[in-house]
Amino acid sequence: MVATDKFKKMPETATFNLSAYLKERQQLCETALDQALPVSYPEKIYESMRYSLLAGGKRVRPILCLATSEMMGGTIEMAMPTACAVEMIHTMSLIHDDLPAMDNDDYRRGKLTNHKVYGEDIAILAGDGLLAYAFEYVAIATPLTVPRDRVLQVVARLARALGAAGLVGGQVVDLESEGKTDTSLETLNYIHNHKTAALLEACVVCGGILAGASVEDVQRLTRYAQNIGLAFQIVDDILDITATQEQLGKTAGKDLKAQKVTYPSLWGIEESRVKAEQLIEAACAELDVFGEKAQPLKAIAHFIISRNH
Amino acid sequence: MVATDKFKKMPETATFNLSAYLKERQQLCETALDQALPVSYPEKIYESMRYSLLAGGKRVRPILCLATSEMMGGTIEMAMPTACAVEMIHTMSLIHDDLPAMDNDDYRRGKLTNHKVYGEDIAILAGDGLLAYAFEYVAIATPLTVPRDRVLQVVARLARALGAAGLVGGQVVDLESEGKTDTSLETLNYIHNHKTAALLEACVVCGGILAGASVEDVQRLTRYAQNIGLAFQIVDDILDITATQEQLGKTAGKDLKAQKVTYPSLWGIEESRVKAEQLIEAACAELDVFGEKAQPLKAIAHFIISRNH
Repeated sequence: MVATDKFKKMPETATFNLSAYLKERQQLCETALDQALPVSYPEKIYESMRYSLLAGGKRVRPILCLATSEMMGGTIEMAMPTACAVEMIHTMSLIHDDLPAMDNDDYRRGKLTNHKVYGEDIAILAGDGLLAYAFEYVAIATPLTVPRDRVLQVVARLARALGAAGLVGGQVVDLESEGKTDTSLETLNYIHNHKTAALLEACVVCGGILAGASVEDVQRLTRYAQNIGLAFQIVDDILDITATQEQLGKTAGKDLKAQKVTYPSLWGIEESRVKAEQLIEAACAELDVFGEKAQPLKAIAHFIISRNH
Repeated sequence: MVATDKFKKMPETATFNLSAYLKERQQLCETALDQALPVSYPEKIYESMRYSLLAGGKRVRPILCLATSEMMGGTIEMAMPTACAVEMIHTMSLIHDDLPAMDNDDYRRGKLTNHKVYGEDIAILAGDGLLAYAFEYVAIATPLTVPRDRVLQVVARLARALGAAGLVGGQVVDLESEGKTDTSLETLNYIHNHKTAALLEACVVCGGILAGASVEDVQRLTRYAQNIGLAFQIVDDILDITATQEQLGKTAGKDLKAQKVTYPSLWGIEESRVKAEQLIEAACAELDVFGEKAQPLKAIAHFIISRNH
């Protein structure tokens, strides 16, 4: 049966090899990202965009997008342009966050930050260029077999996850709360729901939408993503305290230095770990209805809290 | 006949009142922009976005978009979300261009620039937020009567006009040529085709696409837009020399001070004026085929070279 070919690569047993799965998908994403953005005139801006876009990273976001498409009966091909777009958006947010006027960071993923290599002006423009290209790429590269209304929904959701109602809004509240020691749990949740969870949610939900997920399935995917998004941030906060700069590939201990209120500073490290685990369990429970096809997304959820960088 | 209602407002005589037309359209755009972006939490970012978006300006870009939609048999309603989006993109490019790391401007449209009021961090984020919202707004607010594939084409064209193949690329080459006195005419044309003409072209072409313009018509609209785009920039260069800061609402004489090569510096002011007029004539000739319905776009083209600010 030809129609089931696309599921052949899906893991069918409980002994799912996540490490091999992630490695294979990372490679697919690297190749796709490299091909999505060839160098053209004026070379400097493309090189600057590619410097940050191809600087490695775990590619968790695009992999989540592809995995959700497959779980919902779609293919890697139909989700790959969106997977590339979420990584472009994520990269753009890192470039702008690292600027002197923002977090003023010199290192990212073990390399000099974009503005340290190309200058502030080019770094600002590289972020703008990646942002614009993310939307162009979804619009022009998504296979024509995907109905256009689904692609347009993806554009709207990616844009919302990025804008003032998403990432940008989270960053603003984060900047406002810097140096304050009385930040409430409500505000902290707002920051992370918007700075981290919103884009992770868009990755998962857009993968589902491209594959034709129903309204009910989209709600399920949303709850899965919101839970792993918050767990992801709690683990990030813990790692900022416990990991070394070498492991992180970026400046460690930043939050303490900036006197930021974090989950560990509110709950302690152990309690934070417990909360993260509970969130992951809740996330996985949402996917039980999809049976064995949910294995990759469940394994990725557990990976998020076990990572050490 | 109900079907012709939408043309009732179209000018039918040679005594087309451009001033009244522009005033009416500007008001429509102001209202639409104000309603498109209500203030929400976190207020600071929305206020910063609205500060620049609603800072006046001639609204030439959105008016071109609406006018082209109407000329091609479409309506104001179907083009208004795209018209708002082009103004959001234009505003975003101004906010980022004015930053200290870029052109370092204190005034814009007679008001303090965004970063002078809200700080550099918020100004960067306000630009990002406007950019993201431009795409979200086109995707969610364009009436469902417009086929989704047309809306997706608009997303792709707006993104391209903005990115490294458009505005961003033009800005990069502009930055590179600053302080150089041997910039070639070819480079100068590249800068302006990308910094100015690309977005003007997107305004016009997207207005046409939304209304269902044919491939041939899109080509015609493209040529019209490229010609007025270049004329627009030549006039900008002339005004930078001849107009006062009060007339411009921004710092005057910037190009001379930055030792920039401009059209007047290559051709002289009089020759530049003649070239601009020739470009406008060529632009209008492209629209002859559309008869009287082309009157607003032709009048706007002439307005571009007669303006004094």
